[in-house]
Amino acid sequence: MSIDDEVPITTNSKLGGDNSVGLVTPQYFTFAEAPNEMALDSGARIGPITMAYETYGTLNAARSNAVLVFHALSGDAHVAGYHTPEDRKPGWWDLLIGPGKALDTDYLFVICANVLGGCKGSTGPSSENPRTGKPYGMQFPVITIGDMVQAQRFLIDHLGIDRLLSVIGGSMGGMQALEWVIRYPERTASVLAIATTGRQSAQGIAFDEVGRQAIMADPNWAGGNYYGQASPTAGLAIARMIAHITYLSDAQMQAKFGRRLQSRESLGYDFTAEFQVESYLKYQGDAFVRRFDANSYLYITKAIDYFDLEASKGSLIEAFSGIQSEFMVVSFTSDWLYPPYQGKALVRALQANGIPTTYLEVPSTYGHDAFLLPNERYAAAIHDFIMNIYQRVTKGEN
Amino acid sequence: MSIDDEVPITTNSKLGGDNSVGLVTPQYFTFAEAPNEMALDSGARIGPITMAYETYGTLNAARSNAVLVFHALSGDAHVAGYHTPEDRKPGWWDLLIGPGKALDTDYLFVICANVLGGCKGSTGPSSENPRTGKPYGMQFPVITIGDMVQAQRFLIDHLGIDRLLSVIGGSMGGMQALEWVIRYPERTASVLAIATTGRQSAQGIAFDEVGRQAIMADPNWAGGNYYGQASPTAGLAIARMIAHITYLSDAQMQAKFGRRLQSRESLGYDFTAEFQVESYLKYQGDAFVRRFDANSYLYITKAIDYFDLEASKGSLIEAFSGIQSEFMVVSFTSDWLYPPYQGKALVRALQANGIPTTYLEVPSTYGHDAFLLPNERYAAAIHDFIMNIYQRVTKGEN
Repeated sequence: MSIDDEVPITTNSKLGGDNSVGLVTPQYFTFAEAPNEMALDSGARIGPITMAYETYGTLNAARSNAVLVFHALSGDAHVAGYHTPEDRKPGWWDLLIGPGKALDTDYLFVICANVLGGCKGSTGPSSENPRTGKPYGMQFPVITIGDMVQAQRFLIDHLGIDRLLSVIGGSMGGMQALEWVIRYPERTASVLAIATTGRQSAQGIAFDEVGRQAIMADPNWAGGNYYGQASPTAGLAIARMIAHITYLSDAQMQAKFGRRLQSRESLGYDFTAEFQVESYLKYQGDAFVRRFDANSYLYITKAIDYFDLEASKGSLIEAFSGIQSEFMVVSFTSDWLYPPYQGKALVRALQANGIPTTYLEVPSTYGHDAFLLPNERYAAAIHDFIMNIYQRVTKGEN
Repeated sequence: MSIDDEVPITTNSKLGGDNSVGLVTPQYFTFAEAPNEMALDSGARIGPITMAYETYGTLNAARSNAVLVFHALSGDAHVAGYHTPEDRKPGWWDLLIGPGKALDTDYLFVICANVLGGCKGSTGPSSENPRTGKPYGMQFPVITIGDMVQAQRFLIDHLGIDRLLSVIGGSMGGMQALEWVIRYPERTASVLAIATTGRQSAQGIAFDEVGRQAIMADPNWAGGNYYGQASPTAGLAIARMIAHITYLSDAQMQAKFGRRLQSRESLGYDFTAEFQVESYLKYQGDAFVRRFDANSYLYITKAIDYFDLEASKGSLIEAFSGIQSEFMVVSFTSDWLYPPYQGKALVRALQANGIPTTYLEVPSTYGHDAFLLPNERYAAAIHDFIMNIYQRVTKGEN
């Protein structure tokens, strides 16, 4: 997911205007304290765990209007609104979340938490290891999408919500949404899985692994013990650049950059970043290292690569057996990281279980990043799907 | 181009059997000695230039049966046969070159030279800079596909060949074939451009640039002055791994590796290369750094990125104007580095000039690497195209 320059910058004269959630304050919830550490899929235990999260809108009296949004690889809990009146950019999915928007906070209570393993307020490799008093680094246990989801469940328990209206996510967020409904089938009325897959492909693993190798090859990585000293920015920037290419599309890169030069009239015959696409990637890499922890990148990509609903349940059809929730699966035509054929495989397995499923394949040239970008058809489909669930779930509540 | 493991290993009991060219000896030609250095597209001059090359078959009396094969990014002059009876692997395109093969050495005289800028015997950044007596390193001038082709023309002059029967290449080799006929339209009867493009795409530049950044971020790169000391193997391996993903296809990676583990029964919950696809990439990276010079990788990818027939001539149609040669363009359905739409753009521009052009789109799941792999339809099409030209060109010779 590329947040840096893809989120349209609003003027923010009124904190995004009437359809903004306005100012929001990050919140924190800590659990799994000794001796009740949380058990992970690996068999390891970890605690305490802090989850940084934000909420938007108001939880209704029946606690039935809560929507849990999961972020993607490089995201965070700040999905909508502004932290300060001076913020130039809103949260990463502000486009879809707010009064009158696709996820309409006039009706919905929206929650988003930074994932376990992250570096945006939740416990991750840069957090203090209680056994040593120093940052975990590579002492942090390898986590899975299931572990991330389990940590989110502790948060939802804490918020006193028995059953979510919906779990929603794009990319790795979609993996978490799928994992949530499989682990806790009673605990959501619906699932909205966007630009995602039931299992990470070999090609996806390959790209992630090269990124990890780039980080670990950086001498500043120092086996993960770089906190308080120079960090592996060169390696992390390369990992980000590789990944960023997979978030765009051939057609979109051609349209956005083509072979245009950045600041020259003609070829420079040197090794500076002279093509616009080179300069753009360099910017993306440089911006990313200022806001993201390299070890978190290792752990989160590993969790993505481990994600495989087929292996954990025998088949995708088995994985969804017994589920009562309603689904919408969204793919984008030019997404080659999680292409439509992977979305369709989810849909076939859901339908084989008789689960009500809407499939939307959005025509787009924006590649994987399309899920973060303005698209009327996409926003309207999300709105209609969720409001339909909302009306059904809240019907009969006074 | 991935040579390491893609070339089928023959048993070599008879040096590849009756249809092998057998033992071949590398040859060398040096030219452009002071004060007659070769002028480059950048305006710089370079000399002396040595070209390492090999030939197969026999040049006929009329010198009319010569075929010039251009190699791709990581290739070399050793395109067919064996250097020693102990060699386990033949040259990189042995599949297509030999007696009775697609490029039939019973009729044809096949030439292949290592490109200018390379590290396989021809002059490149690892060669001695005559001004300093030390390896060029980054003092080597930035070169273009046109410069590579010009150096090859000196070799063809040296061999006393006025007009080639064909210029042939895949990937960057195809770029050279196209460039050759545009620069020297009188000097080839035909062009066979395989899995290639008339201009490097933004996405292609992006992948190359990340590879270059990985090399230059390796502290061992040392500004290119690493000769005689530790070389930037970590960075070069990462560059190779990135590129290697672009040579395969999503479908092929799924078929070849899927999510299979290399040597474990279950997930290891650590950061070793546990998936087969990770292990394979690591092998590819490690093997590559033993046979390739990192600076050559920088220079050759830069030449690829600079390649743009449209820019140099105004349009692709203009680029091919006045050309009399006959063309065959081959694309592979699953090649996403140089996809069929790029091959078709060449064909449209050629046909707009009334140039006799055959287009073959080969169904294949092997991605870009398909051009190096066995495929009957592909081999037969090459054979028929070339033998047709051969018969026409040599008709009337006694």
